[in-house]
Amino acid sequence: MKLVTFTNTKANAEEYRLGALLENKIIDLNVASKNKLPLSMLSFIEGGENFLSIAKEVINKHDSSSVVSLNEVKLHAPLPNPPALRDFFAFEEHVKAGAKRRNENIPDQWYEIPAYYKGNHRQIYGPEDIIPWPSYTRRLDFECEIACVIRKRGINILESDAEQYIFGYMIFNDFSARDIQKKEMELRMGPAKGKDFANAFGPCIVTKDEVDPRKDFSMKILVNGELWSSGHFKDQYWGFPLMISYVSQEETIYPGDLLGSGTFYKGCGLDLDRWLKPGDTIELQVSALGSLKNKIGTPKEYKGLNYKMKSRSKSMCLPNKE
Amino acid sequence: MKLVTFTNTKANAEEYRLGALLENKIIDLNVASKNKLPLSMLSFIEGGENFLSIAKEVINKHDSSSVVSLNEVKLHAPLPNPPALRDFFAFEEHVKAGAKRRNENIPDQWYEIPAYYKGNHRQIYGPEDIIPWPSYTRRLDFECEIACVIRKRGINILESDAEQYIFGYMIFNDFSARDIQKKEMELRMGPAKGKDFANAFGPCIVTKDEVDPRKDFSMKILVNGELWSSGHFKDQYWGFPLMISYVSQEETIYPGDLLGSGTFYKGCGLDLDRWLKPGDTIELQVSALGSLKNKIGTPKEYKGLNYKMKSRSKSMCLPNKE
Repeated sequence: MKLVTFTNTKANAEEYRLGALLENKIIDLNVASKNKLPLSMLSFIEGGENFLSIAKEVINKHDSSSVVSLNEVKLHAPLPNPPALRDFFAFEEHVKAGAKRRNENIPDQWYEIPAYYKGNHRQIYGPEDIIPWPSYTRRLDFECEIACVIRKRGINILESDAEQYIFGYMIFNDFSARDIQKKEMELRMGPAKGKDFANAFGPCIVTKDEVDPRKDFSMKILVNGELWSSGHFKDQYWGFPLMISYVSQEETIYPGDLLGSGTFYKGCGLDLDRWLKPGDTIELQVSALGSLKNKIGTPKEYKGLNYKMKSRSKSMCLPNKE
Repeated sequence: MKLVTFTNTKANAEEYRLGALLENKIIDLNVASKNKLPLSMLSFIEGGENFLSIAKEVINKHDSSSVVSLNEVKLHAPLPNPPALRDFFAFEEHVKAGAKRRNENIPDQWYEIPAYYKGNHRQIYGPEDIIPWPSYTRRLDFECEIACVIRKRGINILESDAEQYIFGYMIFNDFSARDIQKKEMELRMGPAKGKDFANAFGPCIVTKDEVDPRKDFSMKILVNGELWSSGHFKDQYWGFPLMISYVSQEETIYPGDLLGSGTFYKGCGLDLDRWLKPGDTIELQVSALGSLKNKIGTPKEYKGLNYKMKSRSKSMCLPNKE
């Protein structure tokens, strides 16, 4: 199943609705199920196996009253309100490239534990959304990733049992402000302002019965239609089942929690040394998962993030001299 | 106002209720307000000025039907479901001590931006709760901090306007697994398993009209009743208004969001080189905010967090040889 969250633009409706994506149409699952299925993706995930089987049934038996044409809707992030977002760093060559830029080797610890940071689960963007360019960065970047959606609550999950905690997968563009992120990483607290302004997901969640990341996703990055890079998901060093096991040690995970894979080597502008400009269109194409396209906004005046104590009484943001 | 979340143990009730703490009694604000005030702290905070004035009024006029004795209740974390937790690193001498342990100086970046990591907003403990000792650590530690509770939604907030976004303050014990945290910090992604198992708050939120952090909180740490350390909040280098301004740049903050101050120098076992043992009782006393006491649990078998690829097919957690 390919599941989406949409609003009906033809009807000028603002209500977010749950849909199943078929070729060029959407089945409104709440309508098709006669209200047995909820409107929100999070409630749907929380409903577990029961809701999944109702959805399968109504997709097979739907009539035209529940069908909406794709050109009558706006798609949103499939899960617009994830309860948490953890983003991993799971591709060895990408990590190696970062270490090399600092004249370092990959730290031994990277091979011992699947490292991740906790992202901002509330700055969520969907397909075709314009990604605002934060006034504090000159180095806006993308990262082409896969997000794994958690299906049910659990703690202390064995790697061998982790598959049953997975609901599905979607494309994830982990937008980053590299100049700020670099400063933050030096302080060892992980990325904050360098990442937290925008996370984009979509166009749909593909349920795990339809895809298997271990058999590879093929990934392409296009900027303004030009192919900038491509990669393979199977190059991932740490897999989702192990990540789930790791995170869940003495810590509860919940339905709708998202785990990002991290980007493959050259799956971001930093690895390519190519940079987005205001107004660019960035598209991530992933086999079986679809295409996630976003336009980059135009920054307001550049302000930087300089908060030096001495100067901060004068103005909130001083121009950054970098 | 001193606000608490409690359950009535005498009545064997499981429902979390909102209360105002007065000497040795609690006023049940939902009862006292004849249902005008909600049961949950988060809804109360979201209700804004209106709910605050109703609360003040009913506290002044309450009758005995809304009073519960303190020994008839269990106090929980005042806000058991914060939507987000960001924890700062705002005391210079604590940062200096950490750098010194690594034979480094404080990085210049620390003086430029108020560094923080995003904590786990869903492993929340309250007063008297037993803090589970994670099987993967041998170095369980505490950090004596103040948490600032956000009152209303905002974005791009000026430091000079930030006060009006503050609801109140409470004591925060940022439990840490130092052996794991050390590995994680080397990977520059910030703490994850090293912090995310437990965050304790309480006993109450003191609304901001009653306290002013700039006039200092005096802080004491007692382990099994023995004074281990004491400190002053005014040693903080970065203050809450600036943190709010920093975080909110092109990123929305919400009612109930928590900002942790970080610990003062010697406000944690790591700075003192003194370590908690299973079964210890740790108490954080802060002037005007009260006392937060927790017992440390007894660890299950030590498992470590070794996830090396080669060995991970054999067992989920191998004994750590450190």
